[in-house]
Amino acid sequence: MSNDAHARPSGEADILYDPDVPTPTHGERARTLVSNIKTGTLCTLAQEPAGFPYGSFVTFSLDSGDPIFFISTMAEHTKNLLLDGRASLLVAESGGADPLAGGRVTLLGEARQLVADEDRARARASYLAIHPNASYYIDFGDFSFWKLEVASLRYIGGYGRMSWVSLEDWRDATPDPTAAFADGVIEHMNEDHAEAMVAYCHAFSRATDASAATMTGLDRYGFEMSAETGQGPRPIRLPFAEEIRSADGARQEMIRLLKLARHELAAGEGEGS
Amino acid sequence: MSNDAHARPSGEADILYDPDVPTPTHGERARTLVSNIKTGTLCTLAQEPAGFPYGSFVTFSLDSGDPIFFISTMAEHTKNLLLDGRASLLVAESGGADPLAGGRVTLLGEARQLVADEDRARARASYLAIHPNASYYIDFGDFSFWKLEVASLRYIGGYGRMSWVSLEDWRDATPDPTAAFADGVIEHMNEDHAEAMVAYCHAFSRATDASAATMTGLDRYGFEMSAETGQGPRPIRLPFAEEIRSADGARQEMIRLLKLARHELAAGEGEGS
Repeated sequence: MSNDAHARPSGEADILYDPDVPTPTHGERARTLVSNIKTGTLCTLAQEPAGFPYGSFVTFSLDSGDPIFFISTMAEHTKNLLLDGRASLLVAESGGADPLAGGRVTLLGEARQLVADEDRARARASYLAIHPNASYYIDFGDFSFWKLEVASLRYIGGYGRMSWVSLEDWRDATPDPTAAFADGVIEHMNEDHAEAMVAYCHAFSRATDASAATMTGLDRYGFEMSAETGQGPRPIRLPFAEEIRSADGARQEMIRLLKLARHELAAGEGEGS
Repeated sequence: MSNDAHARPSGEADILYDPDVPTPTHGERARTLVSNIKTGTLCTLAQEPAGFPYGSFVTFSLDSGDPIFFISTMAEHTKNLLLDGRASLLVAESGGADPLAGGRVTLLGEARQLVADEDRARARASYLAIHPNASYYIDFGDFSFWKLEVASLRYIGGYGRMSWVSLEDWRDATPDPTAAFADGVIEHMNEDHAEAMVAYCHAFSRATDASAATMTGLDRYGFEMSAETGQGPRPIRLPFAEEIRSADGARQEMIRLLKLARHELAAGEGEGS
């Protein structure tokens, strides 16, 4: 499956927007997802029953794309890793009405215990930044820091969006800064700016008959709507002029786009008269 | 670690209630947890990178203690299982303030594809009862039913409560019927019946100086409170006269216990005067 920066949707002839609109890569989507979730399932190879894949609940942080764990030497997963470092970490979104529509990432690689002072200090800083409550037991002697050195990874973004992501894409990707506020922007647009979204559809897409539109997604590169057309609901994706980094930046860009849309639609009416 | 029906807390000399109070076994706690959660992490042995434990997000149902999956033949976990059936399923509670305080269960065993009509019909009924939306694709040809035949399991109920549960305990255990309404009862008691809980502590425990008490847990066999005593907050567990099966049953038992407590406390005052 495609993992390009400009991933083109299937069925191009049928889509009502520019298929070359910038879209997050799977590496970026995966990195964003894992950066915004603090717990996952660590999979190790069990000692007993020997060789069985063993899933356990863990907290983690991310250091340059590699998960950091702070785990008890008495825990099953730690005993397993001491014998065989092969492991994976599943990180999954939750809370949606349809659980299989949520995104998830499996990171695979060798886990190794961090022993050098420098490595442990770096892991400690990474872990405490995400799990400040761990400061109460961070110096207990029976816990140690481990790093999963990611060698391969699989991303599933819900139905029909999945791929093995290249390690280079994973390493290069940065988390999407809009993840922290996208839901708020989407809710605000849908509650208070229904007309603006119809204007976006009419001015910037082929859904020129759209009677209504609902925002369904937003990322640093653009946003997505479901437009009510004569042929039923259709997806529309539109680009931002530049990467969005803040909620205020998103608000300003939405206003700029609305002015531009109204200008273009007024010009079009002028032509038609 | 203990897994008895009457698991005795540690530090008995210090506890302010009858240490023989009936308490759910770890098998019962595990069975209740898994019965009330619909998604988990399936751990399989990867084809590529070969032999690595691979974690993937799955939906499941439970058939007599064995997880049932309805999975696509194109999915990585299915390809993995077709080569090697060794697997585990991690099921974890979520939503608490401290993620490591939540319960989780790892079920380990061999997964096998169900091919006999009878097995598939039974799995289908089990799965659709929990995931009714799957009816839209339940008859797609590229999906199949799999059963994880549980051979061993580990329960972690949060900090310091964990054990390998015997297969017999897991098979015999039934889900706690109070799980569906316990949170509501606890909230109601804490909001509206603070005095009743102080009376329970005074009449039925050694926390006879309790100035306040908060309900912290409820199961079919009894309930737990945190009592404010001269020595600080202390846990109290009290039994029900018989197993609770409904919210109304819990309410009636709370009223019965309050009458009994008031009667005993009045009798005690009478003795003291």
